[in-house]
Order: sequence, then C-alpha cells, then structure tokens
Amino acid sequence: MNLRGVGVSPGIGHGPAYVLTVSVPEPPEGATYTGEAEQEKERAMVALTQVAGELESRGNQAGGEAEDILKAQAMMAEDPGLIVKVKSLIDRGLAAPRAVFEAFVKYREVLAGSGGYLGERAADLDDIRDRVIALLYGQAMPGLPVSPAEPYVLVARDLAPADTALLSREHVAAFVTEEGGPTSHTAIMARAMGVPAVVACPGATGIPAGVHVMADGTTGEVRLDPAEAEVADALGAATLRQAVLASSRGPGRTADGQPIQLLANIGGPSELAAAVEAGAEGVGLYRTEFLFLDRSEPPSEEEQRDAYRAALEAFPRGNVIVRTLDSGADKPLAFLPAQGAEPNPALGERGLRKARRFPEVMDAQLGALAAVASERLQVMAPMVATAEEARWFARACRSRGLPSVGVMIEIPSAALRAEHLLAPVDFVSIGTNDLAQYAFAADRELAAVSALHDPWQPALLDLVAMVGTAAAEAGKPCGICGESAAGPALACVLVGLGVTSLSMGAPAVAAVRAALAEHTLEQCVLAADAARAQVTAAQAQEAAREQLPGLDSLGL
Amino acid sequence: MNLRGVGVSPGIGHGPAYVLTVSVPEPPEGATYTGEAEQEKERAMVALTQVAGELESRGNQAGGEAEDILKAQAMMAEDPGLIVKVKSLIDRGLAAPRAVFEAFVKYREVLAGSGGYLGERAADLDDIRDRVIALLYGQAMPGLPVSPAEPYVLVARDLAPADTALLSREHVAAFVTEEGGPTSHTAIMARAMGVPAVVACPGATGIPAGVHVMADGTTGEVRLDPAEAEVADALGAATLRQAVLASSRGPGRTADGQPIQLLANIGGPSELAAAVEAGAEGVGLYRTEFLFLDRSEPPSEEEQRDAYRAALEAFPRGNVIVRTLDSGADKPLAFLPAQGAEPNPALGERGLRKARRFPEVMDAQLGALAAVASERLQVMAPMVATAEEARWFARACRSRGLPSVGVMIEIPSAALRAEHLLAPVDFVSIGTNDLAQYAFAADRELAAVSALHDPWQPALLDLVAMVGTAAAEAGKPCGICGESAAGPALACVLVGLGVTSLSMGAPAVAAVRAALAEHTLEQCVLAADAARAQVTAAQAQEAAREQLPGLDSLGL
Repeated sequence: MNLRGVGVSPGIGHGPAYVLTVSVPEPPEGATYTGEAEQEKERAMVALTQVAGELESRGNQAGGEAEDILKAQAMMAEDPGLIVKVKSLIDRGLAAPRAVFEAFVKYREVLAGSGGYLGERAADLDDIRDRVIALLYGQAMPGLPVSPAEPYVLVARDLAPADTALLSREHVAAFVTEEGGPTSHTAIMARAMGVPAVVACPGATGIPAGVHVMADGTTGEVRLDPAEAEVADALGAATLRQAVLASSRGPGRTADGQPIQLLANIGGPSELAAAVEAGAEGVGLYRTEFLFLDRSEPPSEEEQRDAYRAALEAFPRGNVIVRTLDSGADKPLAFLPAQGAEPNPALGERGLRKARRFPEVMDAQLGALAAVASERLQVMAPMVATAEEARWFARACRSRGLPSVGVMIEIPSAALRAEHLLAPVDFVSIGTNDLAQYAFAADRELAAVSALHDPWQPALLDLVAMVGTAAAEAGKPCGICGESAAGPALACVLVGLGVTSLSMGAPAVAAVRAALAEHTLEQCVLAADAARAQVTAAQAQEAAREQLPGLDSLGL
Repeated sequence: MNLRGVGVSPGIGHGPAYVLTVSVPEPPEGATYTGEAEQEKERAMVALTQVAGELESRGNQAGGEAEDILKAQAMMAEDPGLIVKVKSLIDRGLAAPRAVFEAFVKYREVLAGSGGYLGERAADLDDIRDRVIALLYGQAMPGLPVSPAEPYVLVARDLAPADTALLSREHVAAFVTEEGGPTSHTAIMARAMGVPAVVACPGATGIPAGVHVMADGTTGEVRLDPAEAEVADALGAATLRQAVLASSRGPGRTADGQPIQLLANIGGPSELAAAVEAGAEGVGLYRTEFLFLDRSEPPSEEEQRDAYRAALEAFPRGNVIVRTLDSGADKPLAFLPAQGAEPNPALGERGLRKARRFPEVMDAQLGALAAVASERLQVMAPMVATAEEARWFARACRSRGLPSVGVMIEIPSAALRAEHLLAPVDFVSIGTNDLAQYAFAADRELAAVSALHDPWQPALLDLVAMVGTAAAEAGKPCGICGESAAGPALACVLVGLGVTSLSMGAPAVAAVRAALAEHTLEQCVLAADAARAQVTAAQAQEAAREQLPGLDSLGL
C-alpha cells in the first residue's frame, strides 16, 4: 500500500515507521476502584506530578522555545482547578484513570469551544491526559527512541517544536505528517535539518508501527513495505543526483553568466557553519528573533553585536542581510506587550508595526548593527505594508549610518505598490511564505487550506513579477527569502520574473545552483511567462518545466 | 477640549456622554470579613448567581447572536472551578469581594496568556468580575439607561454586539469608541442604525460622564462642551445637507446618464423595509448567516425559501444578490465543525472553503434558492481564492438551474486573477472590507492597525481597478458590496475604476446617489486616475476630490 502527500524536503528516507500517536484507550465509563479514596487520589496525583516532571525535564534538555512550550504543558498537568476536579470525581467513586479522563474532558471543552490559540491548547491537553492515563494503566510513556538501532521514519498527525526539539538527523530518516503544508514549520524544520519530508499525507497515522516505510520528499510518495530492489533503485537515483549536484560549485549564475546570488536563511549563529558548507554566498535572511525570545528584557548591545559579527566573519566576502526583530502576537515578548487581544495574530501588530510602537527596542538593535557595520551588512524590516512605513524605517537606519537599508515584501499591498516602497530604500526581499498566506487568505500552518499555498499559484507569481519589474526599473536588487527559492524549477522562474538573489535553507543551495547553471536568463524569462499564462498552479509548473529542459537531466 | 477619531457613520450627534466603563475599585489586598465563612460564601454565591441571571435575561431580551454571547458570559459567572476557588479563598479568610477578585485574576491569567480568542474571553471576564464586585459593594450594576431623558452619546473602549443589542436609535445620539476601525462591527452597526459614529478616538473613555458631547461622524471630530451656537451651526449644516440629499430621487446614474445600480446590504428580512424606504434599487448583498446561526441543524428549505422570497417581494423590480452561507471559525456552526484549531480564523476554512467540505449544506441552500428563482435572483459565493473554486461553485449553481451566478472578490489572489475567475460566472462583487484586511495583512477589527484600512489606500484601489478592467473586458457586471461603496467621494472613484453597481448600508444611499448625479463618468475616471497616482491614502482622497467639484456644493 502506498500513500501520497506533498513533498516538502527533497530526498529519499526509509526505515521502520515510528508513529507518534498515543493510543491510550478511554477508561470505561463509570469505572470504580476498590481501595480507599485517599489512596486512589494519591495514585492520580503521583501520575500527574510525574508527567509534569517529565515534560519539564524534556524542556530543560531541549532549551529555547521548546523549553517554554513544554514547561507550559507541565503547568497544565498540575493546574489546581484540574486537581480539585480529579479529586472530587474520585470522591464520587470514579477510578483514577476515569476521573482524570473526565476532568480533562471538562477542561478541553472550555478550551476547544473558543477556537484559535485556545483550541491549540486543547490538543496539548489531550497529549497530557493520555500520558497520565497511560501511566496509571502501566503503559509505556510515549516519547521518541533515544538511540534507535537504525534511523526511523517519524510519522505523526503534525509535529510541534516540542516533538522535534531533541531529534537528530542521524536518528530520523524522514518525516511524514498528516497535517501541515509546504511552508509549515514542520516543512521548514525538515529542510533545515536536511531530512526528507512529506506533509499533508492523509492516512499517515494509520501506518502500523514498525512497518518499513520509504518516503520521497520530492514527489510526496510514501511506500509501505517496499521491495528491497525498489529501495535500492530510489537510493541509487538519489545518490546519482547528489553526485551531479555536488559537482556544481562556485557562485550562482545562469548558463549565460547572469550572476544570481545564492544565500542562506539562518535563525542564529549556530546555523552558519552549515550555510558555509553548503556553498551559500552569504546570508539572505538572518532572523534575529532568537536573540529576543525567552527573555524578560532585550539582549544587550554587546550580545547583539557578537551575533551579527559572527555572520560577517563566517562569510568574509559575502553579504549578510539582517532582518530586524519580527515579534508579534504568536511570539509574545514580555517587553513588547500587545495592546489587547488579537483574534488573528497573523493580521495583527507584527514586525515593523510593533517596532513603531516601541521604537527604543528597534533603535537599540540598529545601534548594535551600526556598531559592526560594514558595506556587506544590509538591514531590512519585516511586515511593511506601505511606502510611508518604508520611509520611516529607512530614516531610522540612515540616522544610524547604516549603509544599506531594505524592506521585506510579504504583504500584497507592498507588492502592488513596490515602486513606492522601493523609493526610500536600497533593496527589497520578497517573503513568499507570508505573501502567499495573505494573497490567498490562507493560514500557512493550516492543512485545510494548504492547497492554496502551492508556490506555483499564478497569482503569487503575478505579485513577484510586480516587485521584480519595479526593482529592475529602479535599478535596485530584489531578493527572495521565502521557501519558494528552494525549489530548483521555481528558482529559475523567479529569476525570470526579475529576482536577483535567492535565499533558502542551506540544503537546497546545491540543487538550485545546478538548475540555474543549466539554463539561460532567456529560458528563465520564457518559463516565467509560460507559468503566468496558466490558470492553475499545476498548469503553471508544467508549463514552466517545458521551458527548462535541463531539469530532467539533473533529476530535479 | 476636543478629541479626534475616525468618522465612520456620517451625521452630527450630540447629548450628554454616557461612558460605558465600569469603574469598580480593586478590593483591598488581604481584606477580611467579620461574620461566618458560610455566610460570606453565601454572599459571594448570591452575587455570582444574580449577575449570571441578569446577563442571561439581557440575552433573552436581545435574541440572536447577542443572546448566545450573553449566555456564554452567564455560564462563566457560574463556572464550577471559579466557585470552588472563591469559596476556598473565603475559607482562607478573604472577604467575598477580594476572593472574587483573586479568583478571577487566576482565570484571567490563564486566558489572557494565550492570546487570540482566549484573550477576548479575558476581557469578558473582567466585565463579569466587575459586575459581581459592584454588586457585593452595593454599587449600581453597569448597564445602559433604558429610557433616558434625552438621547445620549455612548462612549466606550469598544462596543460588543452584547452592548448594543438593546439599543434604539431614539436613545443614542452618537457612538464614540477608542478602538475599532472603519470596517469594524461597531462602524457597520452604527451605519445600519443611521447613528453618527466616531471610532479609533484616543482618550474617549476619559470623557467625564454627563459632559455634553458633539460627535461629527463625517470628520471624526468630537467636541466636549460645545457652545450652543456651535451645535446649532453643525446641526443646521447637517439639516441643509439632508434636504439636498432628500431631493435626489430615482435610480443611481452619473450626470451624463450612466446607470449605476444603488443596492442595499442586508442581514435578514427585517432590514428590507429600511432599504426600500432609503430608495435602494435592490439588494446587493444578502448575508444569509442569520438563517444558520444559533441552531443545531440547518434551517428547512421552506424557512429559507420564505426568507429569500421576502427580498424579491420587497423589491418587485430590483435585483436581489444572495451570498451563500459564510461560516467560519469566528462564527462556528454546530453542523459545520472546524477540522481543528484555527490560530487565525480569518485565514482559515471560511465561506466557500467550508462549503466544499460540507457540500450538502450549500446544496440545500442552492435548492431553496432555485425554488424561488426568478431572473432577478442572483447567487454568489464568499471567500473565493482561485478560478478552480469559482468553476466548482458555478457548476453547482447551474446544475440547480440558477440563472445568475457570481463570486465575491475579497481575497487579493481573486482580484489579481479576476479574468480567470470571471470566465465561469456571470458577475463579480468586490468585498472591500475583507479585501483590505488581506491586502494589508491587517485585522479589520483591530484598532492598532486601523490606519491601514483606510479605503482610500492606493493599493486597494489598484485591486479594484484590476477587477473593474477584467469585468469590462469580459462584458460582465462588477459590483462593490464593501463599506467603501458608502462614501460619496469614494463611490465616484469606484465607478471610475469600472464598478457597475454599489451596495451599501441603507442610510448611505441618498448621499451616494446625490454625489453620482453631480459628476460625469469621465470625471469619475479622472478622479480614479488621480487617486491611483498618489502614494498615500490621504493624498489619494485629496487628489480625487479635486476632480469631483460637486461634492462641496452638496456638503459631502
């Protein structure tokens, strides 16, 4: 039997399936206990405390954002209201597992009924509940194998940062999830790890644990129990492809010599080494949130300087584009409080909007950047919607003496009015993930609308074309730092639309370099025109590939 | 002293300020009681129960959506977990008001910390808490005057449907709120009631209760304690303007005779009479959600037929455009459950997306529409992002024999690809409120980003122009049913962009009719061109008005 999803991180991964579902039976209705009420209560309390403790210690091991998430879950397991409810149900005669079950049902209803973030917490509750019940039943606690005999294919409904916090690419052969889309965090994380991944794969969690699975992160195919020869063939083709890609070296350029900078997206200094190793020419998107999360106040100027300097040193001749802090309601920071509840955080006070209300935090960051400034250091703002916002940011940077100022184009209005946004700045960089999210009104984390995030959607290409054209007319560089840049065929199309640099997760650099080297700029333009002439994303991809004959020979 | 906000519902309103804030002091920390614990608990329970009862009875009076909201609040006041907490704090010696205060603090933290909908519930909790504490202190319960001696100006941070459920336009002279934007529910509701309103007005809740206030819903100016002569002048000008508008009659057309249908947006049969009285030529947006909300299963075909037929009968010669059910995570329906938590409901499975997963509900609605079908009945789908979705909807309608099928253009991708969306349908209607929300990635209900919702934003006009041009090339009608259509100057610009019908709240019809009658189509086109040539919304408005000299003579 085979399944099919959306390939979001290329390569072939195979191994036994490790299915991350907790299959804990519902304790029978009306189940009672035999001993004393106090003993039964004690049993429940011990289980709740133990689960809280394990969640907390996993958090400590993981550190960073995962630590916060896991500690919040640990607190839920010890919520006083919950404990009161469990005890009172046991007093009324229910066995501990059933009491736990019913107490969580009550909590879950309250949370789930409210939708939004509340709903997400509800799923967390299920996980905690099942862990507690499993413990009461003497079942093994769910968790990932720490030192597996062979790499496994991790199958799950969806993966939270908490699930993946402790994973190593040596242990995980591939990811397969039922939820998620090409720009979901699972996909981005898989690409960053260089692990093949298939998302939006219906039926995945029905794969029996331990069954041998082969996942193709390019085509989205998931084969159960493949023949040995099949695996060998697929791996052989992948190895061949790797060899071809490995032979491509040097800076990015089209077959006719048009230079296209190939840059890396990074989330902190720890990712610099992989970017250098992959042959990236510099950093196209340096997300600086890592410096600010999990803190009660902003990092010191010295700490910031060190982080920015590390990138300039890792790429002694390349450009480093730093994006100023992109905080928002989904990444709340204690020192940048929201003005009130935001029912749709993605449409709220994010990025530069927040910076305008707390100019001191942005100004300190610009100060730290100015302190390490070189001609190679470029600074850009996230979530810019209007020319007026671009002017405000440019003025703030210039007053600090920063030599190169840009803005992200990730809101449709910014693409529509690219000409006006470009006027006060030196460059723009298109964030295709958010741009698609807004252009199609489709949450990038939501599987139910993931089809709309196909980066080949002609309307998305229209927006990129508007920006590319405006940038060419202004004689200013136009980069792409969304995940679109990571697809070899799409990268050629983007170049055809006027993009002058491509920034991506490090593992994608080799394939994009090889694809560009096979095609002339004119071929890229023809491919872009062909794609935009179509109605659907699938038609656009097919039409573009017809203009890019070199892809097949590379196995891309 | 004067304040300034954003005028969102035209006209002059004046009267004593009624400030809807509950100013309940925090009960002193460590406050204790003198009598028995049981008595103190009883006091607290009585207060909680009474507040719950009052919320519930206000809900019963109001009916509809407000009823649900108020009943949910009533349930919160009697939440068992909350009651346990209050009692245990009283057991530990705290006086009832302090115990209630601290128990709510705990709840609020849990809710507020999670953001999103959860956060909104947190604000509800504050309101309930303050009501309970006010009762324990013997303070008057906050609530609106039922039969005021004179109409008052209602001032609030923001107005929920619950606040306004029982309001009558005879009692409220104007609305002034600190939060909200031009397309927020407060604004839409004020326009529907025909009451002047100013939103996004900083400092409004600092207006002392009872001070005489004059609010100008056109300019956004809020005057405190105005001189009598000032009020007389403003009212005189408004009366004159009313007289001019009242003299305009008949169907909408430009000065050179180009017909532009003037239609009404309605939310149910009860709004038909006002639409007819205002001289609307038909219904441009019939929101059918009212039939589906507050129910455990969809309405019967008979009930639906009656509701649709009422509109056709109210306008015996006009068109009636019915929008199929637009449900989503922010308006959950029991029979259309979400697939999971939606962190950003506005970017989730709304409108047609939901209908594709539950085709039977949409099909039953199309069946009811087909049963009353006439050539004047038009049907359109909400939240259409791609041509493929438009085709799917058109096929479903045609198979029911519906004569006229359209789609809403309220997602940027739909505007960008209007040519392809138009191909399978007979007409399009632009929803400018949502279109602006997505084009600027700015929640229409969030004051912090309300400046981006200025309907004069040039990028929004660009999207309208794309649709107008594509519709003209296809020879198909292009309507507007967003609130943009309600502004007389903007209505002229929209006509200049290619729009062929304008649908708005009934009170706006007269002014728009008068404005169009003063200008030729060519003037409208020149005004549109002038607006789109600008960089900012303010510049666009100014440039357009220069091309529309008739507005000043009408006082518009």
